[in-house]
Order: sequence, then C-alpha cells, then structure tokens
Amino acid sequence: MLDVNMGVPLTDEADLLSRAVKLLQAMTDLPLCIDSSVAEALEAGLSAYEGKALVNSVTAEDDRLELILPLVKRHDAAVIGLPNDETGIPATAQERVELTGKLLLAAERHGIPAEDVVIDPLAMTVGADSDAVNITLEAIERIRDTYGVNMTCGASNVSFGLPNRHALNATFLPVAASHGLTSAVMDARTPAIVEAVRAGDLLLGKDPWGGAWIAEFRRRQQERAGGA
Amino acid sequence: MLDVNMGVPLTDEADLLSRAVKLLQAMTDLPLCIDSSVAEALEAGLSAYEGKALVNSVTAEDDRLELILPLVKRHDAAVIGLPNDETGIPATAQERVELTGKLLLAAERHGIPAEDVVIDPLAMTVGADSDAVNITLEAIERIRDTYGVNMTCGASNVSFGLPNRHALNATFLPVAASHGLTSAVMDARTPAIVEAVRAGDLLLGKDPWGGAWIAEFRRRQQERAGGA
Repeated sequence: MLDVNMGVPLTDEADLLSRAVKLLQAMTDLPLCIDSSVAEALEAGLSAYEGKALVNSVTAEDDRLELILPLVKRHDAAVIGLPNDETGIPATAQERVELTGKLLLAAERHGIPAEDVVIDPLAMTVGADSDAVNITLEAIERIRDTYGVNMTCGASNVSFGLPNRHALNATFLPVAASHGLTSAVMDARTPAIVEAVRAGDLLLGKDPWGGAWIAEFRRRQQERAGGA
Repeated sequence: MLDVNMGVPLTDEADLLSRAVKLLQAMTDLPLCIDSSVAEALEAGLSAYEGKALVNSVTAEDDRLELILPLVKRHDAAVIGLPNDETGIPATAQERVELTGKLLLAAERHGIPAEDVVIDPLAMTVGADSDAVNITLEAIERIRDTYGVNMTCGASNVSFGLPNRHALNATFLPVAASHGLTSAVMDARTPAIVEAVRAGDLLLGKDPWGGAWIAEFRRRQQERAGGA
C-alpha cells in the first residue's frame, strides 16, 4: 500500500492530490492511502480514487471527527485513527486506549464499522523519553485486548534523533508485532528492516512452516548464483 | 558469563570439569556456569570454583531436584531451573508456569532463595511447530507476572533446522526481552545478534538516553576511521 501526501505550502492541495491519485492508479495496482490534514484535499483524493481507500488520518478531536468521518463514510473508505485530542499526544497507554474507544464509538455513530478503523498507537522516539516505546507497546497490547482492531504506526519515529536508525527500526517492528501491531508505515527499501519483519512473521506463527522465509532464502541464493 | 561443559563420552567428566574450571579462572574474570547432567561432575566443578557459580541445570523431576539442589545450596551457588518433568517438555505455557512454581518451592525448601533460581522458559524451534515461539513468549510473560524471577534460554533453539538462522536469532532476542526474558544463552560473536540485543535494550528503556548505543556507534566510527 502506498501513502499519497501532496501537502506542499502555497499549492492547491485538493487539485494536486486528485491528480496524483489518478496518475498513481494508472501506474500501479497497489492500494493507496490518501494522506492529508485538509478535508477538501481528502474529498478530492477520495473522489478521484477507484476502489476502497484508506484515509490518513483522523484524530479523536471532536471537530476533526465531525469533519472527516462523514467523508470516510460517503466514500466507503477505511480510516486511520490517532488516539490524541486537543491536548496533544497522551503520555500514558491508558489515555490512548480511552481515546481509541472514543474514535471507534464516533466511527460507529457515522456508520463506519470497527474493521474499517485502523488505530495508530503513536510510536515516539526513545531519544526523548527512555520509556516511550514501552508505553507504545503497552498501548498496542491493551488496544488489541480491549478492541481487537487493526493497528498501524510510523515505525521509524522510535529512532528519531539517534544514530544507526535502521537497526533500531528493524528491531522495533517484530517486537511491536509480538505485542499486537498488525501493520506499519515503514521503510520497505532497507533489506535489514524487511528481513526483520519476515523473521518476526515466522517466529510469531504468521508464516506456517517457514514457507515464505525459505522461499526468500532460495531466491537470494539463486540471485547470488546468477550474479557470480 | 561463560558456560563450561565437559560432557564427552568415555572420559572422567568430574576430573575434566574440575580442571577446566581452574584453568578458566586463571585466564578470565568472567563468571562461569558449571554445566553437566552428572551430579559428581557438578560437585567437582563447584568445589574447584572460586566465587558464586551458576549451575546448569536442574529439571522439575523429583529425583533431579533431590540430587542437584543440595549441591547448589552447599556451594551457595545459583541454578538454572528447567520447567519440564518426567513426561518431557510441556506443550503449553500453563504447564511451564506450574512447573516453575514446583522448582521455586523445592529450591525454597532447600534454603535456596528465588533470586538464586534462573528459570529457562524452554525455547523450541518454529521449524517443528509454528506456535513454538508464541508458547515460549506466553510462558515468559506469565512466569514474569507470577514469580518475577530472572530467566534465561537457549535462544538459538528457535531457528533450529531453518536457513539464515542468525537473522531469526537476532529477531527473537529483543522480542523475548520485551515479554520479560532477562538473559540468554546466545552467540556473542555474531555482530547482527549483539546489535539486535543492544537495540532492544535501548528501545525497552534499559539503556537510558541511549548512552551505550551512542558509545558503540562512535566506537565503530573510530574503528572505521582508523582502518581507512
């Protein structure tokens, strides 16, 4: 899935997003995530999109819920919900679980079922707070146990401001998956990160008998043999 | 810490282990783990050792508990406890938690406090059972929540029989640490595995402000600069 964001200052974001969506759908069959904080741009992007889109994102602020959820419903899209409100990113897992409940309830009231809401448990950098990832892991676990919804998060946030970020991001993803994270906004071009996710899938029972793991190993062996 | 095992068929294991312990203590200040299934060899190794040793290991079988725990107590050592009994490795986390209780109770009765018992939650390969690591992770979490004891395990077991084992082992360690594993019998010579453990320490709040992570990054930078 590709995230499409056209948020460039002093441009007509609605027009740009609409054109980007059409252009991308002519180039790829990958589903798109329409990413904007501007309701008009989301509306234009969703109107241009063919298929079921994912909207990135809506916060648990009352005015944002009332602005974004009707758009999501009208286009039969799914939406990423951020459990933060007017007061900013909650410091505790407990508050994120509570705001997840508020998001799911608001979605339900707008006729959007829980399976069309993807919660972002809010990954923050351990560079600013040594407990940041522990809080995110606790939020992931409690959101899974309480609501059983799908989740995604900006995985690379955890390493912001630190050296050797790839290694930290590669380590974070399988750890988070083991606590209940079901997807991530991640860098799919770095082999070490992709390998860690595949290893996590195998270890956590999501790659039965290692079929995908062994196939990838053989593919690389052949690549090496071909390159030799 | 180094694990010392002299289990070679047709040799005098007690004599070998005693001499190995003396030799190693002349060479290194690292603490040793005296590893044998033979009580006489453990006795000889513990008698030769100076300091507080760790005994590897005792199972939850009644006769093994009665044989090994008095040795551990007499030498004021610590001991690795394996929560399996006469019937083999328990298939469920629940049984491993129960046998952990049996081990800790037997230790207590022999005057060995819980902080001198290190429980091995028994890591098995996902190559034989896709749910093997999930069961180990559940055992780790429940043993931590129920007894709060230290744990260790043979981390490389998880990848037995699979290709690209280093990547699987490197992924397993921080995942297991995030569920409560406090140490591991692991390969400390493979950089990717050591790096994953360091990354896990930072992400899980055990390396405040990334002091160790940043120092290691600088050390490698200097190494590269020196080698250039």
